[in-house]
Amino acid sequence: MTSPLLEQLIEAFRVLPGVGQKTAQRMAYHVLERERDGGRRLADALAESIERIGHCARCRDFSETETCATCASASRDVQQLCAVESPADRLVIEQATGYRGLYFVLQGRLSPLDGIGPRELGLEQLATRLATGEVQELIIATNPTVEGEATAHYLAQLARNHGVRPSRLAHGVPLGGELEYVDRGTLSHAFGSRSEMP
Amino acid sequence: MTSPLLEQLIEAFRVLPGVGQKTAQRMAYHVLERERDGGRRLADALAESIERIGHCARCRDFSETETCATCASASRDVQQLCAVESPADRLVIEQATGYRGLYFVLQGRLSPLDGIGPRELGLEQLATRLATGEVQELIIATNPTVEGEATAHYLAQLARNHGVRPSRLAHGVPLGGELEYVDRGTLSHAFGSRSEMP
Ligand SMILES: [Zn+2]
Ligand SMILES: [Zn+2]
Repeated sequence: MTSPLLEQLIEAFRVLPGVGQKTAQRMAYHVLERERDGGRRLADALAESIERIGHCARCRDFSETETCATCASASRDVQQLCAVESPADRLVIEQATGYRGLYFVLQGRLSPLDGIGPRELGLEQLATRLATGEVQELIIATNPTVEGEATAHYLAQLARNHGVRPSRLAHGVPLGGELEYVDRGTLSHAFGSRSEMP
Repeated sequence: MTSPLLEQLIEAFRVLPGVGQKTAQRMAYHVLERERDGGRRLADALAESIERIGHCARCRDFSETETCATCASASRDVQQLCAVESPADRLVIEQATGYRGLYFVLQGRLSPLDGIGPRELGLEQLATRLATGEVQELIIATNPTVEGEATAHYLAQLARNHGVRPSRLAHGVPLGGELEYVDRGTLSHAFGSRSEMP
Protein backbone atom coordinates (compact mmCIF):
# COMPACT_ATOMS: atom_id res chain seq x y z
CA MET A 1 0.00 0.00 0.00
CA THR A 2 1.36 3.43 -0.89
CA SER A 3 -0.30 5.26 1.98
CA PRO A 4 -0.69 4.22 5.62
CA LEU A 5 -3.65 6.60 5.96
CA LEU A 6 -5.37 4.93 3.01
CA GLU A 7 -4.79 1.53 4.60
CA GLN A 8 -6.37 2.84 7.78
CA LEU A 9 -9.37 4.19 5.84
CA ILE A 10 -9.94 0.83 4.13
CA GLU A 11 -9.78 -0.92 7.49
CA ALA A 12 -12.22 1.60 8.95
CA PHE A 13 -14.81 0.99 6.20
CA ARG A 14 -14.99 -2.66 7.27
CA VAL A 15 -16.99 -1.62 10.31
CA LEU A 16 -19.99 -1.26 7.98
CA PRO A 17 -22.33 -4.27 7.62
CA GLY A 18 -21.58 -6.52 4.65
CA VAL A 19 -18.38 -4.69 3.76
CA GLY A 20 -15.33 -6.93 3.29
CA GLN A 21 -11.79 -6.06 2.23
CA LYS A 22 -12.54 -5.74 -1.49
CA THR A 23 -15.62 -3.55 -1.03
CA ALA A 24 -13.81 -1.41 1.54
CA GLN A 25 -11.00 -0.81 -0.98
CA ARG A 26 -13.50 0.17 -3.65
CA MET A 27 -15.22 2.58 -1.26
CA ALA A 28 -11.97 4.24 -0.20
CA TYR A 29 -10.75 4.68 -3.77
CA HIS A 30 -14.13 5.86 -4.97
CA VAL A 31 -14.31 8.58 -2.32
CA LEU A 32 -10.72 9.75 -2.88
CA GLU A 33 -10.99 9.71 -6.67
CA ARG A 34 -14.45 11.07 -7.25
CA GLU A 35 -16.32 12.04 -4.09
CA ARG A 36 -14.18 14.08 -1.75
CA ASP A 37 -17.01 16.52 -1.02
CA GLY A 38 -19.45 13.70 -0.39
CA GLY A 39 -16.87 11.92 1.74
CA ARG A 40 -16.42 15.03 3.85
CA ARG A 41 -20.20 15.27 4.33
CA LEU A 42 -20.28 11.60 5.34
CA ALA A 43 -17.48 12.09 7.88
CA ASP A 44 -19.28 15.08 9.37
CA ALA A 45 -22.69 13.38 9.45
CA LEU A 46 -21.19 10.28 11.07
CA ALA A 47 -19.31 12.20 13.76
CA GLU A 48 -22.25 14.45 14.53
CA SER A 49 -24.79 11.60 14.57
CA ILE A 50 -22.67 9.47 16.89
CA GLU A 51 -22.13 12.47 19.13
CA ARG A 52 -25.70 13.69 19.27
CA ILE A 53 -28.13 10.86 18.55
CA GLY A 54 -29.35 9.11 21.68
CA HIS A 55 -32.73 7.58 22.46
CA CYS A 56 -36.16 9.16 22.79
CA ALA A 57 -37.27 9.20 26.43
CA ARG A 58 -40.78 8.06 25.45
CA CYS A 59 -40.35 5.45 22.68
CA ARG A 60 -36.62 4.56 22.94
CA ASP A 61 -36.14 5.07 19.19
CA PHE A 62 -33.14 7.05 17.98
CA SER A 63 -33.51 10.76 18.59
CA GLU A 64 -31.28 13.78 18.91
CA THR A 65 -33.86 15.49 21.13
CA GLU A 66 -35.22 14.22 24.43
CA THR A 67 -38.54 13.37 22.80
CA CYS A 68 -38.50 12.32 19.14
CA ALA A 69 -40.52 14.08 16.45
CA THR A 70 -43.06 11.23 16.26
CA CYS A 71 -43.75 11.15 20.00
CA ALA A 72 -43.97 14.95 20.08
CA SER A 73 -46.36 15.11 17.12
CA ALA A 74 -49.94 16.18 17.85
CA SER A 75 -51.24 14.34 14.79
CA ARG A 76 -50.52 10.79 15.93
CA ASP A 77 -53.18 8.58 17.49
CA VAL A 78 -52.21 8.06 21.13
CA GLN A 79 -54.65 5.18 21.52
CA GLN A 80 -52.49 2.86 19.43
CA LEU A 81 -49.02 1.80 20.44
CA CYS A 82 -46.86 -0.47 18.29
CA ALA A 83 -44.02 -2.40 19.93
CA VAL A 84 -41.06 -3.27 17.68
CA GLU A 85 -37.69 -4.83 18.34
CA SER A 86 -35.50 -2.24 16.63
CA PRO A 87 -35.43 1.25 15.10
CA ALA A 88 -35.07 -0.39 11.68
CA ASP A 89 -38.31 -2.34 12.22
CA ARG A 90 -40.07 0.83 13.30
CA LEU A 91 -38.84 2.61 10.17
CA VAL A 92 -39.98 -0.13 7.81
CA ILE A 93 -43.49 -0.18 9.38
CA GLU A 94 -43.69 3.60 9.16
CA GLN A 95 -42.68 3.51 5.50
CA ALA A 96 -44.76 0.51 4.43
CA THR A 97 -48.05 1.06 6.24
CA GLY A 98 -50.44 3.93 6.88
CA TYR A 99 -50.07 3.53 10.65
CA ARG A 100 -50.68 6.80 12.52
CA GLY A 101 -50.28 5.64 16.13
CA LEU A 102 -47.16 5.71 18.29
CA TYR A 103 -44.29 3.27 18.76
CA PHE A 104 -42.31 1.62 21.50
CA VAL A 105 -38.87 0.34 20.52
CA LEU A 106 -37.72 -2.57 22.67
CA GLN A 107 -34.12 -2.43 21.41
CA GLY A 108 -33.99 -6.22 21.51
CA ARG A 109 -36.12 -9.23 22.42
CA LEU A 110 -36.35 -11.40 25.50
CA SER A 111 -33.34 -13.68 25.57
CA PRO A 112 -32.61 -14.95 29.10
CA LEU A 113 -29.46 -16.78 28.02
CA ASP A 114 -27.99 -13.47 26.81
CA GLY A 115 -29.10 -11.66 29.94
CA ILE A 116 -31.82 -9.74 28.11
CA GLY A 117 -34.89 -9.57 30.33
CA PRO A 118 -37.86 -7.21 30.82
CA ARG A 119 -35.61 -4.54 32.35
CA GLU A 120 -33.30 -4.39 29.30
CA LEU A 121 -36.30 -3.98 27.01
CA GLY A 122 -37.70 -1.08 29.04
CA LEU A 123 -40.84 -3.01 29.97
CA GLU A 124 -41.29 -1.17 33.29
CA GLN A 125 -41.49 2.03 31.30
CA LEU A 126 -43.94 0.38 28.91
CA ALA A 127 -46.08 -0.86 31.84
CA THR A 128 -46.22 2.65 33.30
CA ARG A 129 -47.41 3.92 29.97
CA LEU A 130 -50.05 1.22 29.57
CA ALA A 131 -51.26 2.01 33.10
CA THR A 132 -52.26 5.57 32.17
CA GLY A 133 -55.35 4.27 30.35
CA GLU A 134 -54.53 6.30 27.22
CA VAL A 135 -53.51 3.32 25.09
CA GLN A 136 -56.36 1.12 23.78
CA GLU A 137 -54.39 -1.30 21.60
CA LEU A 138 -50.85 -2.63 21.81
CA ILE A 139 -49.81 -3.79 18.34
CA ILE A 140 -47.03 -6.31 18.88
CA ALA A 141 -44.72 -6.33 15.87
CA THR A 142 -41.82 -8.37 17.17
CA ASN A 143 -40.20 -10.70 14.64
CA PRO A 144 -41.82 -14.13 14.00
CA THR A 145 -38.82 -15.96 15.47
CA VAL A 146 -38.81 -18.11 18.60
CA GLU A 147 -37.53 -15.29 20.79
CA GLY A 148 -39.76 -12.75 19.07
CA GLU A 149 -42.82 -14.92 19.73
CA ALA A 150 -41.87 -15.39 23.38
CA THR A 151 -41.50 -11.63 23.67
CA ALA A 152 -44.89 -11.17 22.01
CA HIS A 153 -46.59 -13.45 24.53
CA TYR A 154 -44.95 -11.61 27.39
CA LEU A 155 -46.07 -8.25 26.00
CA ALA A 156 -49.62 -9.52 25.37
CA GLN A 157 -49.91 -10.57 29.02
CA LEU A 158 -48.54 -7.21 30.13
CA ALA A 159 -51.16 -5.44 27.99
CA ARG A 160 -54.02 -7.56 29.34
CA ASN A 161 -52.87 -6.84 32.90
CA HIS A 162 -53.50 -3.17 32.19
CA GLY A 163 -56.75 -3.65 30.31
CA VAL A 164 -55.13 -2.95 26.96
CA ARG A 165 -56.05 -5.04 23.87
CA PRO A 166 -52.97 -6.81 22.45
CA SER A 167 -52.81 -7.55 18.71
CA ARG A 168 -50.25 -9.27 16.51
CA LEU A 169 -49.41 -8.76 12.82
CA ALA A 170 -51.40 -11.06 10.54
CA HIS A 171 -49.93 -14.14 8.94
CA GLY A 172 -48.14 -13.09 5.83
CA VAL A 173 -44.82 -12.33 7.40
CA PRO A 174 -42.81 -15.47 6.58
CA LEU A 175 -42.02 -17.67 9.58
CA GLY A 176 -38.45 -17.36 10.80
CA GLY A 177 -37.99 -14.28 8.66
CA GLU A 178 -36.75 -10.87 9.70
CA LEU A 179 -39.25 -8.02 9.48
CA GLU A 180 -36.66 -5.70 8.08
CA TYR A 181 -36.28 -7.77 4.89
CA VAL A 182 -39.96 -8.35 4.11
CA ASP A 183 -41.23 -6.58 1.00
CA ARG A 184 -43.45 -3.56 1.57
CA GLY A 185 -46.61 -5.07 0.09
CA THR A 186 -46.53 -8.14 2.33
CA LEU A 187 -45.72 -6.07 5.36
CA SER A 188 -48.43 -3.54 4.65
CA HIS A 189 -50.98 -6.34 4.22
CA ALA A 190 -49.85 -8.12 7.38
CA PHE A 191 -50.02 -4.88 9.31
CA GLY A 192 -53.50 -4.08 8.05
CA SER A 193 -54.98 -7.49 8.87
CA ARG A 194 -53.40 -7.91 12.29
CA SER A 195 -55.56 -9.92 14.64
CA GLU A 196 -56.44 -9.51 18.27
CA MET A 197 -54.43 -11.84 20.47
CA PRO A 198 -56.72 -14.31 22.25
CA MET B 1 -38.07 9.63 10.42
CA THR B 2 -37.59 10.38 14.11
CA SER B 3 -34.32 12.26 13.69
CA PRO B 4 -33.30 14.79 11.03
CA LEU B 5 -29.65 14.02 11.76
CA LEU B 6 -30.24 10.33 11.12
CA GLU B 7 -31.93 11.19 7.84
CA GLN B 8 -28.89 13.24 6.89
CA LEU B 9 -26.56 10.36 7.80
CA ILE B 10 -28.51 7.90 5.63
CA GLU B 11 -28.37 10.34 2.72
CA ALA B 12 -24.63 10.80 3.27
CA PHE B 13 -23.95 7.04 3.09
CA ARG B 14 -25.38 6.99 -0.44
CA VAL B 15 -22.21 8.63 -1.69
CA LEU B 16 -20.53 5.21 -1.40
CA PRO B 17 -20.46 3.01 -4.53
CA GLY B 18 -23.28 0.47 -4.75
CA VAL B 19 -25.09 1.87 -1.71
CA GLY B 20 -28.80 2.60 -2.23
CA GLN B 21 -31.44 3.82 0.21
CA LYS B 22 -31.98 0.46 1.91
CA THR B 23 -28.30 -0.31 2.39
CA ALA B 24 -27.64 3.24 3.60
CA GLN B 25 -30.38 2.80 6.24
CA ARG B 26 -28.89 -0.47 7.37
CA MET B 27 -25.42 1.10 7.64
CA ALA B 28 -26.67 4.06 9.67
CA TYR B 29 -28.64 1.90 12.09
CA HIS B 30 -25.83 -0.62 12.40
CA VAL B 31 -23.31 2.06 13.33
CA LEU B 32 -25.64 3.77 15.82
CA GLU B 33 -26.82 0.53 17.42
CA ARG B 34 -23.64 -1.49 17.55
CA GLU B 35 -20.56 0.31 16.25
CA ARG B 36 -20.28 3.82 17.62
CA ASP B 37 -16.55 3.46 18.27
CA GLY B 38 -15.95 2.02 14.81
CA GLY B 39 -18.11 4.74 13.31
CA ARG B 40 -16.07 7.40 15.05
CA ARG B 41 -12.88 5.83 13.69
CA LEU B 42 -14.40 5.80 10.20
CA ALA B 43 -15.39 9.47 10.44
CA ASP B 44 -11.88 10.41 11.57
CA ALA B 45 -10.14 8.27 8.94
CA LEU B 46 -12.37 9.70 6.19
CA ALA B 47 -11.86 13.31 7.21
CA GLU B 48 -8.11 12.88 7.64
CA SER B 49 -7.67 10.93 4.40
CA ILE B 50 -9.61 13.47 2.36
CA GLU B 51 -7.64 16.26 3.98
CA ARG B 52 -4.19 14.74 3.65
CA ILE B 53 -4.09 12.21 0.80
CA GLY B 54 -2.97 13.72 -2.48
CA HIS B 55 -0.90 12.20 -5.27
CA CYS B 56 2.69 11.00 -5.33
CA ALA B 57 4.85 13.38 -7.34
CA ARG B 58 6.62 10.47 -9.06
CA CYS B 59 3.92 7.87 -9.78
CA ARG B 60 0.66 9.85 -9.32
CA ASP B 61 -0.76 7.16 -7.04
CA PHE B 62 -2.46 8.22 -3.80
CA SER B 63 0.00 9.36 -1.18
CA GLU B 64 -0.01 11.49 1.93
CA THR B 65 3.68 12.31 1.43
CA GLU B 66 5.23 14.01 -1.60
CA THR B 67 6.76 10.71 -2.71
CA CYS B 68 4.87 7.51 -1.88
CA ALA B 69 6.39 4.63 0.06
CA THR B 70 6.78 2.48 -3.06
CA CYS B 71 8.60 5.14 -5.07
CA ALA B 72 10.80 5.96 -2.07
CA SER B 73 11.69 2.31 -1.43
CA ALA B 74 15.27 1.25 -2.12
CA SER B 75 14.23 -2.35 -2.70
CA ARG B 76 12.17 -1.85 -5.86
CA ASP B 77 13.64 -2.50 -9.31
CA VAL B 78 13.90 0.88 -11.04
CA GLN B 79 14.41 -0.76 -14.44
CA GLN B 80 10.78 -1.85 -14.64
CA LEU B 81 7.89 0.59 -14.77
CA CYS B 82 4.27 -0.54 -14.89
CA ALA B 83 1.63 1.88 -16.23
CA VAL B 84 -1.89 1.39 -14.89
CA GLU B 85 -5.10 3.37 -15.28
CA SER B 86 -6.02 3.73 -11.62
CA PRO B 87 -4.79 3.32 -8.04
CA ALA B 88 -7.15 0.35 -7.71
CA ASP B 89 -5.47 -1.38 -10.68
CA ARG B 90 -2.06 -0.72 -9.17
CA LEU B 91 -3.20 -2.22 -5.87
CA VAL B 92 -4.58 -5.36 -7.44
CA ILE B 93 -1.35 -5.96 -9.41
CA GLU B 94 0.74 -5.39 -6.29
CA GLN B 95 -1.42 -7.85 -4.35
CA ALA B 96 -1.76 -10.53 -7.04
CA THR B 97 1.71 -10.66 -8.57
CA GLY B 98 5.29 -10.77 -7.37
CA TYR B 99 6.15 -7.58 -9.25
CA ARG B 100 9.00 -5.62 -7.64
CA GLY B 101 9.36 -2.74 -10.10
CA LEU B 102 7.75 0.69 -9.94
CA TYR B 103 4.41 2.05 -11.15
CA PHE B 104 3.00 4.97 -13.04
CA VAL B 105 -0.68 5.70 -12.46
CA LEU B 106 -2.34 7.41 -15.42
CA GLN B 107 -5.49 8.32 -13.46
CA GLY B 108 -7.56 7.61 -16.57
CA ARG B 109 -7.19 6.55 -20.20
CA LEU B 110 -7.07 8.43 -23.46
CA SER B 111 -10.57 9.56 -24.30
CA PRO B 112 -10.53 12.54 -26.68
CA LEU B 113 -14.32 12.91 -26.59
CA ASP B 114 -14.15 13.46 -22.82
CA GLY B 115 -11.23 15.83 -23.15
CA ILE B 116 -8.76 13.33 -21.69
CA GLY B 117 -5.51 13.55 -23.64
CA PRO B 118 -1.80 12.93 -22.97
CA ARG B 119 -1.59 15.98 -20.67
CA GLU B 120 -4.38 14.75 -18.36
CA LEU B 121 -2.64 11.37 -18.03
CA GLY B 122 0.69 12.96 -17.08
CA LEU B 123 2.42 11.62 -20.18
CA GLU B 124 4.91 14.51 -20.33
CA GLN B 125 6.05 13.50 -16.88
CA LEU B 126 6.23 9.87 -18.01
CA ALA B 127 8.26 10.85 -21.08
CA THR B 128 10.74 12.77 -18.92
CA ARG B 129 11.15 9.72 -16.79
CA LEU B 130 11.62 7.36 -19.74
CA ALA B 131 14.23 9.78 -21.13
CA THR B 132 16.55 9.30 -18.14
CA GLY B 133 17.60 5.88 -19.44
CA GLU B 134 16.94 4.23 -16.07
CA VAL B 135 13.80 2.35 -17.19
CA GLN B 136 14.38 -0.73 -19.39
CA GLU B 137 10.82 -2.01 -19.71
CA LEU B 138 7.46 -0.26 -19.65
CA ILE B 139 4.82 -2.81 -18.67
CA ILE B 140 1.54 -1.47 -20.02
CA ALA B 141 -1.32 -2.70 -17.85
CA THR B 142 -4.20 -0.58 -19.11
CA ASN B 143 -7.56 -2.31 -19.28
CA PRO B 144 -8.33 -4.47 -22.36
CA THR B 145 -11.11 -2.11 -23.49
CA VAL B 146 -11.15 -0.04 -26.67
CA GLU B 147 -9.87 3.07 -24.91
CA GLY B 148 -7.42 1.06 -22.81
CA GLU B 149 -5.96 -0.51 -25.97
CA ALA B 150 -5.67 2.86 -27.68
CA THR B 151 -3.85 4.16 -24.61
CA ALA B 152 -1.56 1.11 -24.65
CA HIS B 153 -0.59 1.75 -28.26
CA TYR B 154 0.15 5.39 -27.50
CA LEU B 155 2.29 4.41 -24.49
CA ALA B 156 4.14 1.73 -26.49
CA GLN B 157 5.11 4.32 -29.10
CA LEU B 158 6.22 6.71 -26.37
CA ALA B 159 8.41 3.97 -24.87
CA ARG B 160 9.99 3.08 -28.21
CA ASN B 161 10.76 6.76 -28.84
CA HIS B 162 12.92 6.69 -25.75
CA GLY B 163 14.50 3.32 -26.42
CA VAL B 164 12.42 1.60 -23.75
CA ARG B 165 10.94 -1.88 -24.38
CA PRO B 166 7.12 -1.81 -24.12
CA SER B 167 5.28 -4.93 -22.97
CA ARG B 168 1.61 -5.78 -22.47
CA LEU B 169 -0.08 -8.23 -20.12
CA ALA B 170 -0.57 -11.65 -21.69
CA HIS B 171 -3.89 -12.84 -22.98
CA GLY B 172 -5.84 -14.25 -20.11
CA VAL B 173 -7.43 -11.03 -19.00
CA PRO B 174 -10.94 -11.34 -20.48
CA LEU B 175 -11.66 -8.98 -23.37
CA GLY B 176 -13.81 -6.03 -22.39
CA GLY B 177 -13.27 -6.83 -18.73
CA GLU B 178 -12.05 -4.54 -15.99
CA LEU B 179 -8.70 -5.42 -14.47
CA GLU B 180 -9.95 -4.66 -11.01
CA TYR B 181 -12.46 -7.52 -11.09
CA VAL B 182 -10.23 -10.24 -12.54
CA ASP B 183 -9.42 -13.06 -10.14
CA ARG B 184 -5.90 -13.11 -8.71
CA GLY B 185 -4.78 -16.32 -10.41
CA THR B 186 -5.68 -15.12 -13.90
CA LEU B 187 -4.13 -11.74 -13.27
CA SER B 188 -0.95 -13.21 -11.83
CA HIS B 189 -0.60 -15.54 -14.84
CA ALA B 190 -1.30 -12.75 -17.32
CA PHE B 191 1.21 -10.53 -15.59
CA GLY B 192 3.88 -13.23 -15.60
CA SER B 193 3.49 -14.09 -19.28
CA ARG B 194 3.27 -10.55 -20.59
CA SER B 195 4.70 -10.22 -24.09
CA GLU B 196 6.90 -7.61 -25.66
CA MET B 197 4.89 -5.26 -27.85
CA PRO B 198 6.00 -5.53 -31.47
ZN1 LIG C 1 -40.19 8.84 20.57
ZN1 LIG D 1 4.80 6.96 -5.96
